[in-house]
Amino acid sequence: MLSDKLIKMIIEKRSPIVVGLDPRLENLPSEITRKHFLKYGETFKAAAESILEFNKGIIDAVCDLVPAVKPQIAFYEQYGLEGMWAYQQTCAYAKTKGLIVVADVKRGDIGSTSKAYSIAHLGKTKIGNSYHSAFEADFATVNPYLGDDCMKEFMEEVKTFDKGLFILVKTSNKTSGQIQDLQIDDEKVYEKVAALVSAWNETLCGEMGYSQIGAVVGATYPDELDRLRTKMPKAIFLVPGYGAQGGSANDVVGAFNSDGLGALVNSSRGIIFAFENTEMNYMEAAKLATIEMKNAINDALEKVGKKYW
Amino acid sequence: MLSDKLIKMIIEKRSPIVVGLDPRLENLPSEITRKHFLKYGETFKAAAESILEFNKGIIDAVCDLVPAVKPQIAFYEQYGLEGMWAYQQTCAYAKTKGLIVVADVKRGDIGSTSKAYSIAHLGKTKIGNSYHSAFEADFATVNPYLGDDCMKEFMEEVKTFDKGLFILVKTSNKTSGQIQDLQIDDEKVYEKVAALVSAWNETLCGEMGYSQIGAVVGATYPDELDRLRTKMPKAIFLVPGYGAQGGSANDVVGAFNSDGLGALVNSSRGIIFAFENTEMNYMEAAKLATIEMKNAINDALEKVGKKYW
Repeated sequence: MLSDKLIKMIIEKRSPIVVGLDPRLENLPSEITRKHFLKYGETFKAAAESILEFNKGIIDAVCDLVPAVKPQIAFYEQYGLEGMWAYQQTCAYAKTKGLIVVADVKRGDIGSTSKAYSIAHLGKTKIGNSYHSAFEADFATVNPYLGDDCMKEFMEEVKTFDKGLFILVKTSNKTSGQIQDLQIDDEKVYEKVAALVSAWNETLCGEMGYSQIGAVVGATYPDELDRLRTKMPKAIFLVPGYGAQGGSANDVVGAFNSDGLGALVNSSRGIIFAFENTEMNYMEAAKLATIEMKNAINDALEKVGKKYW
Repeated sequence: MLSDKLIKMIIEKRSPIVVGLDPRLENLPSEITRKHFLKYGETFKAAAESILEFNKGIIDAVCDLVPAVKPQIAFYEQYGLEGMWAYQQTCAYAKTKGLIVVADVKRGDIGSTSKAYSIAHLGKTKIGNSYHSAFEADFATVNPYLGDDCMKEFMEEVKTFDKGLFILVKTSNKTSGQIQDLQIDDEKVYEKVAALVSAWNETLCGEMGYSQIGAVVGATYPDELDRLRTKMPKAIFLVPGYGAQGGSANDVVGAFNSDGLGALVNSSRGIIFAFENTEMNYMEAAKLATIEMKNAINDALEKVGKKYW
C-alpha cells in the first residue's frame, strides 16, 4: 500500500523529505539553458529540454536521500505543451529511480470534472476499449473548497491504483488565513477541512498506521501544525514552507506524531537552487542541501523525543 | 476593455450564455470517433483529434449565438499531452471565430506558483528574451481557498493583457456547502469570499459598469444568487449548473442585476450533447439547444423586468 511504502522509505532513508521540482527557467544553470537555446532557439522546446535535463540531474542527486519528489505543475504549464511534456517525463524518470511522485496540481472541481482530474493524474483514461496513463503520479494535491463530492471522485483511482491524496488544509502563504482561519463557533475553517480529511482517514489506512489521504499543512504556522496533528492522527502531512518560505526544522516538528512519523517536509528552492551563490555544481549543491535539511529535521525530532529510526 | 467587450457582445447577440466545452470521448458522435480510431488506433492522438473536430463543429454552430465558450481543462488533461493540444487548439479556434474564451481551470496556489498559472493561461512566458503564449485564454477561473495573495498574482496579466478572472464563490455541486456555507457570525464563508471579490471590483471596472474580476455562483442555489448579486454589484457572474445540473431559467434570473446584465450562464452537456436522443446532427442540435436556452433566459428576465436588449 502506497502509504506504507512511503513511511517505510522515510524510515529506511532516514528522511521525511520531499524535494519540490519547481523549475524556473531563469534560475537554471546557464550551461544547461545555453546549450538548448543554441539548439532550439528561445522556444518552449528549449525551455522544456532544459527543465528536463535539470530535473534529471536533481533526481539523480537526491534519489538515494529522499523518498519522494513533488513537481509543481504550474511551472510546467507556463511552458505550454512542451512544458507539460517535461512534467510528464519528469514524473516518469523519478519513478524509474524508485521515487514516489507527488503531483502538486491542487485540482478540485464538481464531481464529473474532479473525476477527469483524478483520471488524468492518478488513473487510466479509457479510449475505445484501451486504457492509457495521461500524467501518472502517486499522490495528487487537492483543493477542498468545493467540499466532499469533489474529493470522493478521486477515491476510485486511489483504491484501484493504490494512489493517494494530500488535501489542502492550512497553506503556507501569508494570506491563507483570509478564508482558512475564519472562525466558526470554536473552530476555524481549516479545522472543518481537517475533520473531512480525518473522516476519509478512517478507511484506506495501511499497516504502518497511516492513510492514503493526507493533508497539506504549512510549516509557516507551527501552532496550527500541533493542533492539526491531534485532529488528523492517521494523515500524512505534506508540509510546504520550509526554507525559502521561512519555516525552520524546529517549526516543523509539530507536524510529526509522537512516533516521529506522519510528515513529509517539502523544500523546493532551498534544494534545487542551492547552487546559487556557491562554487558547486547544481547536483552537488542539491545533495548537500538535502543532507543538511535531513540532519536538521532529524536533530530537531530527536530533541523533542520523536526519533523514528 | 474585456469586461466591456463581453457585456456588449451579450447585448448584441441577446445572449448571456457561455457554452461549456467539456468533451467526453464516449459521448461524441460515433462518426467522428470512428474515423479517428481507424486512422490512429485507440490512442490519445485519436481522442484529441476527435475532440478538436467536435469542438470546432460546436464552435461553428454557436459562434453567432453566444459571446463566449468555456473549455473545462480537466476533460483535456485526461487525454495527456495530445488532450492539452486539443485544449490549446480549441481556445485558438474559438478566438478566430470572435468568441471570448473562459479557461475553466480553477487554479490557485501560493504567490509564485499562482503567478506561473497566470502566465500559463492569461499571460506570456519569458524564454531568454522572447515572450510566448502557453495556453492563452481571456478569462480564467480561480479557487480562492488560499486567499488574496494567490489572486493578486493574476493581476499583472489581467492589467497588462486585458484579461479577467472568475473567482469561485458559491459552486453548483451538492456538497459545496460543507466549506462554503460555514457560518461566521452573520455571514457565510462564501460571503467572505464575495467580499474579497467585491474589493477587487473597485478597480478594473469598465465603462459598462462591470469589472474584469467576476465570480462563479451556481445556478443550483437561487437564494444565494440574489444575496450575492447585492454584495458584488460590479462583478460579472459566471453561472454553472443550468440544465443538466438542475438549474432552470427562473433559477438564474437572480444572477442578473436590475439592468438585466452582469451574468453569463453556462451550459455544457445540455448544448454540446443535445444531439443524443434526437435525429439531428450534433451541430444542428447544439444550435437549437442554444436558441432555446437563450429564449428561456430572456423570457424569464423580461418577466421579472430585467430586459437588457
